[in-house]
Amino acid sequence: MITAKARAVDGPDKLFRSAEIKRRDLVSHDVLIEIKYAGICHSDIHTAHGEWGPVNYPLVPGHEIAGIVTEVGSEVTKYRVGDRVGVGCMVDSCGECENCRKGEEQYCLKGNVPTYAGVDKYGEPTQGGYSTHIVVTEDFVVKIPDNIELDVAAPLLCAGITTYSPLNRWGADPDKKVAVVGMGGLGHMAIKIAHAMGAEVTVLSQTLKKKDDGLQFGADHYYATSEPETFEKLAGHFDLIINTVSAAIDMDAYFALLNLDGTLVNVGAPGEPLSLNVMSLIGHRRSFAGSMIGGIRETQEMLDFCAKHNIVPKIEVISADQIDEAYKRVLASDVKYRFVIDISTM
Amino acid sequence: MITAKARAVDGPDKLFRSAEIKRRDLVSHDVLIEIKYAGICHSDIHTAHGEWGPVNYPLVPGHEIAGIVTEVGSEVTKYRVGDRVGVGCMVDSCGECENCRKGEEQYCLKGNVPTYAGVDKYGEPTQGGYSTHIVVTEDFVVKIPDNIELDVAAPLLCAGITTYSPLNRWGADPDKKVAVVGMGGLGHMAIKIAHAMGAEVTVLSQTLKKKDDGLQFGADHYYATSEPETFEKLAGHFDLIINTVSAAIDMDAYFALLNLDGTLVNVGAPGEPLSLNVMSLIGHRRSFAGSMIGGIRETQEMLDFCAKHNIVPKIEVISADQIDEAYKRVLASDVKYRFVIDISTM
Repeated sequence: MITAKARAVDGPDKLFRSAEIKRRDLVSHDVLIEIKYAGICHSDIHTAHGEWGPVNYPLVPGHEIAGIVTEVGSEVTKYRVGDRVGVGCMVDSCGECENCRKGEEQYCLKGNVPTYAGVDKYGEPTQGGYSTHIVVTEDFVVKIPDNIELDVAAPLLCAGITTYSPLNRWGADPDKKVAVVGMGGLGHMAIKIAHAMGAEVTVLSQTLKKKDDGLQFGADHYYATSEPETFEKLAGHFDLIINTVSAAIDMDAYFALLNLDGTLVNVGAPGEPLSLNVMSLIGHRRSFAGSMIGGIRETQEMLDFCAKHNIVPKIEVISADQIDEAYKRVLASDVKYRFVIDISTM
Repeated sequence: MITAKARAVDGPDKLFRSAEIKRRDLVSHDVLIEIKYAGICHSDIHTAHGEWGPVNYPLVPGHEIAGIVTEVGSEVTKYRVGDRVGVGCMVDSCGECENCRKGEEQYCLKGNVPTYAGVDKYGEPTQGGYSTHIVVTEDFVVKIPDNIELDVAAPLLCAGITTYSPLNRWGADPDKKVAVVGMGGLGHMAIKIAHAMGAEVTVLSQTLKKKDDGLQFGADHYYATSEPETFEKLAGHFDLIINTVSAAIDMDAYFALLNLDGTLVNVGAPGEPLSLNVMSLIGHRRSFAGSMIGGIRETQEMLDFCAKHNIVPKIEVISADQIDEAYKRVLASDVKYRFVIDISTM
């Protein structure tokens, strides 16, 4: 077994503490990664706080992982020691079901193995990236392009792919008007990616406080959703809306912003049910869809796309001692736009 | 002005009475249609009862109209006296907006002119097909193929196009597993059309009472939604679900029946808001869409498709005196599967 230093929580209302965790010895296709940076995703907070169901504590969150390969299993072919690599929200899947065979491992019919708070095929609980090392089967490791620094690479593994995948699938392109609801970790990536895909991008944020940043990220327009005239002015305007807000919002008001055959895709997952009037969809043959991260092949494609277009998140690097404070600031929407833990401080 | 005999209601809780209504004198592109049959759609009942908003009474419902052209305006080019024609849910639109230009007049950005309970471009209230004559601009008239009798043609103008359009748009074909929720006027048409398109068709009805009919209409499978094991057995099974039920159902339970990238399309319009857990969509990148009738070009295409595949609704012809009773029976789900008024009895 390999010993890694980590930061763990022992319960929904506990603070992080230093911990030592075990990583399995390398099996044939495994790679050992020395983690350099780990992003803090809102999902980490939901999970750590037990808001998404029961959790086996102690828990080490973190699914935006960037590091260096330091050892490879005997049958590894894709990676070598020294490679710069990333790991996202899942570390394994059945590999055999219809969805896995399509490269959509995130929708594995037997359930993918999440990077933390899951159980791997050896029956062991998975522990995430707030730690110095992780062992992952090579099929769930992606290569970080040379021109992307490891600190800014980390958030691409969740925030990047979560927004790239629906923009890609629903075809954000120069013919499309795309709105991004919410400009946090996911939202700011959605703007950059949609802009690079050539779409006309509009940000719908609660206020105009972050407008300058939004325009710098590549938005063409920026509106405050606290102003009712925003909804009047933009009625029927968009082909695609990416909703990154993970709270219940007035869905009907946002559907009304879609034009004929437009789609609103939720990538945020509010804990409570949403209410909607189905006439909002029927009226202009609109669709309401959901999307969850992306497959491994698509994650690599996203990284290569970001490398080509020089897209990286705007981050604030913190030390391991600042995780609790960072959580508080995420909950207070006080983050521009992603916290990334410098794992060398662990 | 042209005088037509009709059946009208004077208020939300009133019974139908005989009435005389005026139809405009033919303007250049108008055709005068002697109505032979008019279907009874659930929408007629909602509207007559004032459940879909305020109505100007007296009201003559009816938007499933089949008849014969008896006079044409001076500039009419598409129809001649004696032609067998139909009129559906709308009788006009702006003709100029983006959606009208695409042939999607039902989504006219200025609002289409509904066949009844609307206001036409002359400022006059529109009155529907429970009457002996109607005057409609030729662009909103469709030709009924020779091998479709007028009585069974009538319901195609709403129930037919409302189900054909989403089946067509979302590509029901031999590679697709399609479920139809509810087997009433719309549902039974959806089965016939989806079957003719080559899809594997499953009916999801409250009970198995109408199973024999469903299989005769072309369904491959028939399940009762009152049995919980239906939802277990069919989890992740369908590519497309057409929901014809216009009451609030447990949406999450139905979303769970969709496979990766599956879509549930609502053509029923419940009056109350629906509640859903967005994770039901995110989990397998599912979509929830709405669809409303179809454009005029597509309505003609649907009629030609039905003619080619010998598809007609199963109807019960009634006299004009039986409308009130028919309404009661529709509300009690006691109709197999569409009431059609024989207008000669008016």
